[in-house]
Amino acid sequence: MAQRKPRASGEENVVCEIKRTFASKRSGSLRVGIGDDAALWQANRGMETILTCDWFLEGTHFLRDKQPPDAVGWKSLARAASDIAAMGGKPKCFLLSLALPANCTGQWLRSFLRGLSRASRALGCQLAGGDTTRRNEILINTTVVGEVSAGRAVLRSGAQAGDLLYVSGTLGEAELGLRELRRYRGMAKASSNSFIRKHLYPEPRFALGQWLAKNRLATAMMDLSDGLSSDLPRLCSESGVGARVKASSLSRVARDDAKNATELALNGGDDYELLFAVHPKNANKIGTRFRGLPLTHIGEITREQKVLVEQDGRMRPLIPAGWDPFR
Amino acid sequence: MAQRKPRASGEENVVCEIKRTFASKRSGSLRVGIGDDAALWQANRGMETILTCDWFLEGTHFLRDKQPPDAVGWKSLARAASDIAAMGGKPKCFLLSLALPANCTGQWLRSFLRGLSRASRALGCQLAGGDTTRRNEILINTTVVGEVSAGRAVLRSGAQAGDLLYVSGTLGEAELGLRELRRYRGMAKASSNSFIRKHLYPEPRFALGQWLAKNRLATAMMDLSDGLSSDLPRLCSESGVGARVKASSLSRVARDDAKNATELALNGGDDYELLFAVHPKNANKIGTRFRGLPLTHIGEITREQKVLVEQDGRMRPLIPAGWDPFR
Repeated sequence: MAQRKPRASGEENVVCEIKRTFASKRSGSLRVGIGDDAALWQANRGMETILTCDWFLEGTHFLRDKQPPDAVGWKSLARAASDIAAMGGKPKCFLLSLALPANCTGQWLRSFLRGLSRASRALGCQLAGGDTTRRNEILINTTVVGEVSAGRAVLRSGAQAGDLLYVSGTLGEAELGLRELRRYRGMAKASSNSFIRKHLYPEPRFALGQWLAKNRLATAMMDLSDGLSSDLPRLCSESGVGARVKASSLSRVARDDAKNATELALNGGDDYELLFAVHPKNANKIGTRFRGLPLTHIGEITREQKVLVEQDGRMRPLIPAGWDPFR
Repeated sequence: MAQRKPRASGEENVVCEIKRTFASKRSGSLRVGIGDDAALWQANRGMETILTCDWFLEGTHFLRDKQPPDAVGWKSLARAASDIAAMGGKPKCFLLSLALPANCTGQWLRSFLRGLSRASRALGCQLAGGDTTRRNEILINTTVVGEVSAGRAVLRSGAQAGDLLYVSGTLGEAELGLRELRRYRGMAKASSNSFIRKHLYPEPRFALGQWLAKNRLATAMMDLSDGLSSDLPRLCSESGVGARVKASSLSRVARDDAKNATELALNGGDDYELLFAVHPKNANKIGTRFRGLPLTHIGEITREQKVLVEQDGRMRPLIPAGWDPFR
């Protein structure tokens, strides 16, 4: 009777490729990783666990024919982990849910996993498990687990009237990168220019987030994924406050050489910079840079629950016009 | 100048509907739930955290025109939480990633959330957060976080030669339910019959899993989601062992009145029953029922790394023929 081992199935092959890429990288608080029904993880003493997940879908969030699979791998983890930065935490491990067309289980998958693996090492965030299936489009969902000292997480809900509002970095670059990407014929190259690079390989602001949380400097914080005009009202809503933003400061946080810098700063998405509020007594501790990263004071938190932009001495309501998949 | 509050955007509406359904249900170890960048969760003392996620995709895992949205909501959580049962743990909270067509953000969404909310209460598993987006098909990904006493989780990797193999419940019912569902015109009714009910509203075996883990009775365990013929080789592979299954016992765990009962027990998916191995010295503690749920001894773990079926005194290799999305 034939006793040969049955050939590994399609799903088994995808899982094998994932295991091979992430082999022997399990350590520390992750006791059981991929291969079992679920992962086993233990938070360090005195730490709270941070849980977040993000869609990253072909067509909706990335373009298969323009974004190199390596960049899709990097960004699928980086953008999800940005929510951990926004709480002031450290990413620890992640779950990867991956749905692939059959013709993406070879070269595309290997290149995707290389980018994902680089992000995993760069972020100190181990693969803990996930789920794979077949689909006619590439669907990715990433769950990231992080940790933060108990009681030190910075929420969206802590802003108070009088707090100063800051953003890190330069806004709108990823949006400019996306516009260039759309004009591209064929696959983009990371080396093309810095805007495209920022769109393809975002770098969440972990060090800044952790510094603000550790030193209790931010009263409220979030990351800018959909664009300031969409995200700031969310922070205000959770805090039960309003905000007044100076248009003149926005033109400084967008690219100097960009036309319509204010509009770009307000509505450009995918920057993964941090938006945070600071009590006035701590404003002198913030400065204009954190380890080379620009920090810009863009406005104030107000008691009145309206989000306004001040331009040439006049106020206008801030209309959310960032990324909204349902609009 | 017009100062009216900008209307909530589409995505905001979906999030509001979710918040409304799960309002004021946050408690215990979940300190921050939906509304922030991420959730904050703290495991109880002496507990390890279990992490798992599952796809639940229209067309691949459910049929929008045949499965009531309430059942889609129930099953999206129940099937993901089954992996927690398979480790011997308790589900605690979950993240919901939901991608919806615009025409599903009304009645469909409300009914879906009712089913999800019922499962959440039944399982003691709180909504902690998630991500929403628009898509032309309904895509669901559920991350479940559970806990288990440190060191007590039952892995797939602990089976040893000589251990006895058991399955809970009746296999193949969900598969029969699916076959009936496919013949249906229009939306199925949960009341139609018990097979369809088992397919629509699976009930993971938490009590059994926890009892086996607490009393250290199972050396290895997993849940049967793809079918015994696909899942048993995975348990064996992780344990570095083989198995010999008795065909006569399989015809007992499948429905008596089903034709091809053995084939149904081997290859029917979606049952979410538990498959577990027990050291012979503990076999007398297992019995034939656990709180009314049948437990069936179906075979043994072997040193030789082959998975075989014994029928009429002859051995044949077990060919994985359960659910495999890549086949």
